[in-house]
Parts: sequence; C-alpha cells; structure tokens
Amino acid sequence: MEKQKRFFLQENEIPKAWYNIVADMKNKPLPMLNPKTKQPITLDEMCVLFNKACSEQELNTTDAWIEIPEEVRNLYKNYRSTPLVRAYGLEKALDTPAHIYFKNESVSPIGSHKLNSALAQAYYCKQEGVTNITTETGAGQWGAALSYAAKAFGLELAVFMVKVSYHQKPYRRSIMQTFGAQVIASPSMSTRAGKDILTNNPNYQGSLGTAISEAVELAMQTPNCKYVLGSVLNHVSLHQTVIGLEAEKQMEMAGEYPDVVIGCFGGGSNFGGISFPFMRHNILDGKTTEFLAAEPASCPKLTRGIFQYDYGDEAGYTPMMPMFTLGHNFAPAHIHAGGLRYHGAGTIVSQLIKDGLMRGVDIPQIETFEAATLFARSEGIIPAPESSHAIATAIREAKKAKEEGKEKVILFNLSGHGLIDMTAYDQFISGDLTNYSLPDEVIQSNVDQLEKIIK
Amino acid sequence: MEKQKRFFLQENEIPKAWYNIVADMKNKPLPMLNPKTKQPITLDEMCVLFNKACSEQELNTTDAWIEIPEEVRNLYKNYRSTPLVRAYGLEKALDTPAHIYFKNESVSPIGSHKLNSALAQAYYCKQEGVTNITTETGAGQWGAALSYAAKAFGLELAVFMVKVSYHQKPYRRSIMQTFGAQVIASPSMSTRAGKDILTNNPNYQGSLGTAISEAVELAMQTPNCKYVLGSVLNHVSLHQTVIGLEAEKQMEMAGEYPDVVIGCFGGGSNFGGISFPFMRHNILDGKTTEFLAAEPASCPKLTRGIFQYDYGDEAGYTPMMPMFTLGHNFAPAHIHAGGLRYHGAGTIVSQLIKDGLMRGVDIPQIETFEAATLFARSEGIIPAPESSHAIATAIREAKKAKEEGKEKVILFNLSGHGLIDMTAYDQFISGDLTNYSLPDEVIQSNVDQLEKIIK
Repeated sequence: MEKQKRFFLQENEIPKAWYNIVADMKNKPLPMLNPKTKQPITLDEMCVLFNKACSEQELNTTDAWIEIPEEVRNLYKNYRSTPLVRAYGLEKALDTPAHIYFKNESVSPIGSHKLNSALAQAYYCKQEGVTNITTETGAGQWGAALSYAAKAFGLELAVFMVKVSYHQKPYRRSIMQTFGAQVIASPSMSTRAGKDILTNNPNYQGSLGTAISEAVELAMQTPNCKYVLGSVLNHVSLHQTVIGLEAEKQMEMAGEYPDVVIGCFGGGSNFGGISFPFMRHNILDGKTTEFLAAEPASCPKLTRGIFQYDYGDEAGYTPMMPMFTLGHNFAPAHIHAGGLRYHGAGTIVSQLIKDGLMRGVDIPQIETFEAATLFARSEGIIPAPESSHAIATAIREAKKAKEEGKEKVILFNLSGHGLIDMTAYDQFISGDLTNYSLPDEVIQSNVDQLEKIIK
Repeated sequence: MEKQKRFFLQENEIPKAWYNIVADMKNKPLPMLNPKTKQPITLDEMCVLFNKACSEQELNTTDAWIEIPEEVRNLYKNYRSTPLVRAYGLEKALDTPAHIYFKNESVSPIGSHKLNSALAQAYYCKQEGVTNITTETGAGQWGAALSYAAKAFGLELAVFMVKVSYHQKPYRRSIMQTFGAQVIASPSMSTRAGKDILTNNPNYQGSLGTAISEAVELAMQTPNCKYVLGSVLNHVSLHQTVIGLEAEKQMEMAGEYPDVVIGCFGGGSNFGGISFPFMRHNILDGKTTEFLAAEPASCPKLTRGIFQYDYGDEAGYTPMMPMFTLGHNFAPAHIHAGGLRYHGAGTIVSQLIKDGLMRGVDIPQIETFEAATLFARSEGIIPAPESSHAIATAIREAKKAKEEGKEKVILFNLSGHGLIDMTAYDQFISGDLTNYSLPDEVIQSNVDQLEKIIK
C-alpha cells in the first residue's frame, strides 16, 4: 500500500468560520488601553484607525466562531485548502521515529500565509467604503499579500517597508509594485515619526515598530483611509485560524493528532493560526498537546521579555497592549527573518504563556539556516527564514523523539517559501552569517523605560 | 451553487504511465543522425552521452505508454497533482465569454514544470550507477529542478547557466547552490567550446546552445558522468506528459474539453507536456482542438525558421535533428524569458507542425509583460516571463472569442512563477523593456550556413 504524502480538502470543506480562542479562554487577555486615558479602548476609538468589522472582531470575547464572508472564501479558493504534508524526506534524513507533518502555506500565490488576513481586511475596508489603506511590512510577505488583496478589492495601498529588508529583498518590493502598490522605505522623510528617527539616527535601518508608526500616521492624515496590520492583533490571528482549522481536518484524514504544534513567532498570527484550533481541545477537551512558538534568539520577547503594557509601534501611536515585550523602542539585529523582528507579542499569546498553555523557544540565526538547508534538500522546498525557525524547532523535537525512542507526532506551519530570500542563503553558504548576542543589560535598559501599568 | 475554482486528483489518480505520442503519429519524425556518419543514430551511440533508459525512450516509436517508476511517482507526490484552475478573475478582467483554464505547474517546490523530467532523469542515472551529471540552464528553472533531483538521488551536478541569465537571475543560482549543485556561467573558460567562443567574442552573453556544448563536453570528459537535457528531446517531452494527462482528467472533472491548448515554446517540453495527451484525441478520435505554441518574436523558429537537420548545440557536439531552426549559431536577443532563447524545436513538434496538427504564434516581449501583469492582478500569481507567452496567447484567443461571441474553452500551461524574475518586472514597470526586431536577412544568413541534408 502506498503511503499518502499530501492531504487536501475539497473546496466545500474549506472552513466557513474562523475560530476566536478568546471566547474559550478561562482567563481573558487584559484589555488594550487608550494611551491617553489609560482606560480600556472602546469600539469607537478602535474604529478611528481600523475598519469597523475588524475592530469588532478585535474586541469580541464571547463568540467562538465568526463567519468568513463569502467573497473572502471565494478568493481563499484560489489557493486553499493548502496541503498538509507528511515530511517523509525530513524524517528519513533525521532517522527519527517521529511523524513530522507540515502545513504548507507557501503555496499561496504570494508565497506565505499572509494572504489569509490580507484578503479579509481588504474586503471589510471595501465593504465600508474605504478607498485607501496603509500598512507596514518587514521582509515583505505581508506587504506583497496586501498588495494583491488591495488590487482584488480595488483599494489604493501605501506600504512602509523596513529599510533593511527593502535593500535585502528588492524582489518583494517589485512584487508589491507589480500589483500596483506604492512602497516606501522606512524610516522615511514622509512622516513625522520617520523624520524624528532619522534626525536622531540618519543611518537607522528601521524596524517593524517604526514602520507601523509611519503607516498609522499616514492613515490618520489621509481622507477615507484606514490602517491595516499584518500580525499582533487578535483579529489578524483570528483570520489565520483557517490554517489550523484545515490542518485539524487534514490530520484526521492522516489518522493522527499532534503531540506538538510549532509555529515561528513574530507578532503571533501564523503561530496563532496553526495553534489555536488545536489548543481549543487542550482548553475544552483535556488534550495535552504542547505548543511551541519559535522566535529568533536575537529578538526574544517570549523567552526574555517582560509582561507589561506597551505600545505596538515605536512612536507610541497605537493603543497600549498587555504583552511580553522587549520595549517598543527595541532595535532588533539585522537578521534575515525580517518578519520576526518585532518587539512584542499579541495579547492573546501573552496571556496563554502566562497560563502555561504554550511556551516560547529561541533559535539562533545559523541554526535556522542549517535547518532550512536540510529541509530544502530533503523536501525540495526552500523555506522562508521566518519559517525556518519553526523547522529548526521541529528538528529539535524530532531529535528528542529519537533519543527517547518515541513515535511523537509533530506538526509545524511552513508559513512561507524563501525563494525571494536567496541573498540570505548566499550569505549562509559563503559562511558570512552570524548569530547575534543580546546582553541582558540591553533588554533591561529598554524595558526599564516602560511605564509600569501592570504593577 | 458555488463555482469550483481548482481541480485536484487524488494521489492514487496521478498517472502511472507517460504518453509517447510518437507511437500514434501517422508520420513519424525523421530520425536523428550521427553527425559523422549521417546515419540514423543507434541506441549505443545515444548511450555514450545519455543514460540507457532515456536513450531507449528517445528512440521508442512503438509504445504509446511508458511506465513511470514508482520512486519517481513517490517524488511526484510532493507536488502533484498540480491544480487545474478556472481563471475566473482573468475572464472577468477581459469580459470574455471564453472559459479560461490553466494548469498551474508553478506550485512545484522549484516553481516550474521542470521537476517532472528532472526527477525521472536523475532516477534513471542513479539506477544505472552514474555518479555525476552535467546540464545547461537558461533562466535557471531547469537547473534549479535538476539540482533538487540530483540531491534527492545522491548525484553530483554541474550546471552551465547562460551568462545573461546568471546575472539577470542571481537567486536561481543561489537556489541551485542551496541544493548543493556547482554553477558555472556559460560561456566559461572551463571547456574548449566555451574558450573558442570567448576567444572570438569576449563579451558574448551566452545562449542555451552554447551552454549545452559546454555541458556535453564536460560530461564526455568526466568518469561515470552522463549529460542530462531539460527540453527539446523526445524523452523530456515524454516525462512532461504527466501535465496533460492530469489536465485531461481534471478537465473532465470540470465537465469541459478544450477548444484550444496553449503552451509557451522554448525547446518544446512544457508545450508537449500539456498538448500531446489532448492531441492524441485529434489523431485517434477525430477531435479538432487547436494547439498553439507561443514563442518569443525575437526567437521565432516555429514561425520564421526553416525545417532542416541541425545540431542541438552551438558547437555541434550533439546528434543532428530534423527541426524547425534558426541555425545552431543563432544568438538570441537578451529577452527575460531565458528558457525560450533556443534556436530549434524538437523533432516531434517539428513533424507535427509539418502535418498541420499544431502551429506557432510569436509574441513580442512587451505584450508578454502586459499579459503577465493583467494575469497577476486578476489571479494573484506572478507568472514566469516564459509562461507569459502562453498567457498572452490565451488572452488573444479570449479576445477573439469575445469578438465572435463564442464560449470557447481555452486551456494553457502556467509552466512556472516569476517570483525570481522580478528584475524583469522592474524594467517593465519603469518602461525600460523593449521589443527586439529581427530582420529576415539575419535569419537567412544563419540558416544559409546549414548543411542541406533535407533537400
């Protein structure tokens, strides 16, 4: 009998609702705060910046299931279901008794999971009569996805792309432009937030936090314009749960249930996307699956950050969120996983860590590229540097399973491919990549500056 | 009722045999000739350069079906079946009554159809105890595919990459290196063929013909080494028929049969792959489907070449083939569709054109990028410059269908994505792309130099 390698769903089996884990959490996340009043943010206050539907989703703590609009589902069908893949090649290369599965979000036309939320957010903006949107992007995965989504719904889009990635990954800039978006390297001189930073540090290569500040500022100054975010917030993770909901059905087709679920971690959306639907069974049905969020050792908010109210952006324009954070003015090292260079974790994930439902794992850059190369050579897919953090963690778990002689079932999310990140692989091949050490004092001096709202 | 967008096969429905159209052709192609004796080439002579299984396939004129080895099928499962997609977005953008379908080979982990033959050829080499292989590549799609296939079967690989593409598409070089291949820009100083060309023309930017000469020469000089080709030859098209065989079943699932089948055309393998399984019904069952091979206007062997015996490579190392050709020393313009910069057509296709079963269509470069951009914005996928020739032809057909008010069913092969060809899109966006005119005298002076074996 032939072993099945990939599992697909029929188009009519693609989920019809997203899963809102907050409704099932025993301890709800602390509320976001209006930074001026320090009071819980209201729907009206959210709607100044974001579209109404997403703002409602953001604050929804009661409905576990939220319907996916038909127009969004129709566009999902361009690439969903994505395959669940049994990594026989990787298992063989590791000689492990573990069964390794990955959910392959890299087959989206944009090359990553980001499209799942981009289509939803662009749809809601269009529905509400918005004409212009702004956003930030790190490595460009989010910006590329939103560029296509904006075009699909006839919206004008301006993307602030973190400068170090703008230069490392010029192809992603071209992709955004091909879809018709305007792309600006951040920090730029076109916003006050950008100017302030460049005045202090003309060579600053940018961060997601800074790019968010610029995108927010432009959105506030542009008529009929909303800001759109690619991670961190609850509604973004909500949209990404389509990943885990599909994976749940597909694991059933494979006749297995994961002992460990792994996602790389930047703001939390791809991690939440693959994890939350399975975590619901830990919360409600007594399952004991482990959930691992793989972050860069050089940007370790989950493993070395503190839990405190902080801003989502560098300039302090966003609401304050209760999060594991390195401080909103933390300047991450120039690792190639641009999508993980973010100072804080979303509020849901931060609460889940406090409640012991999941934990962070930090991976040095070189280990991620070693894992990526092994994966590429055994499965044929060159992974994104971000996703390689999940692969490295899966490999650690598979090796542990071998030591323990256990037939452990490991599931990770391959959030994207790395075909546009080849300069990073070039550096790895030529031995020019480095790990970055991050002394405790640097983290401490950053978080010391935070207002101590949580005493 | 929801409209289905994508059609997949179950893993057990993936074809178990390739289709060899030669067995069904009423007029068989003229034989390949040994260039020294001018006699039909023998199996033993083929085997000097190629592995035995592929040599046998090359000369097989009797068996319509050739079994796909189980090991190859198992690796096909990493990405096959590829989806057949109904291009609702493109239909809407064109406001056409035509039903447009495309077979999406870009979802292969390497990003193109090339893996279908790379896996087969690497497998046969391994089976026969070969340890080293050489090949050429244009844009790098073939080289990237063979790099992974070589790694999957434990072979050492050297790739001669056409110099203009080596510089235009550095990411594809990195991809090959990530899989462990050695990549050399062609013409190089490491072969006599390369040295001869560079002596005459130090700035020559290469062609597929030259790269083939170098790869053949290195293979002949290396112990236990075979040469592996990515297109043109019968056995390569044979392996690619898995595309059309899947598409046939998938079109059935969609409840339609194509009136027109379109593939871009370099050496003929992706075109043959999508076309031959359908063409068999024209030959055997009286169907009247049209088959269109889309070539660059600047490299128009099908529409402006002559039918004559010619070499497959620039230096004249290969057998002589009866082909539509621009002459083996034709130096194509530096268009971005590197995979289509080849002087001749395979022997099967050349015979099929003579027999009126298909025809060539030539498309100027700028039209291909206009088509590519429209396709990207309406379907979300950025196509390879090569595949964009097929898209442009499909768009021409869809517009014609609109003029005629016909509900024509159009099927084209999306042979690959263009995510690594973004410098080309950059040039298009900035208005720097050009069409290339090719005067008749240039073609004439080239083909005048050919020995007139066919009188």
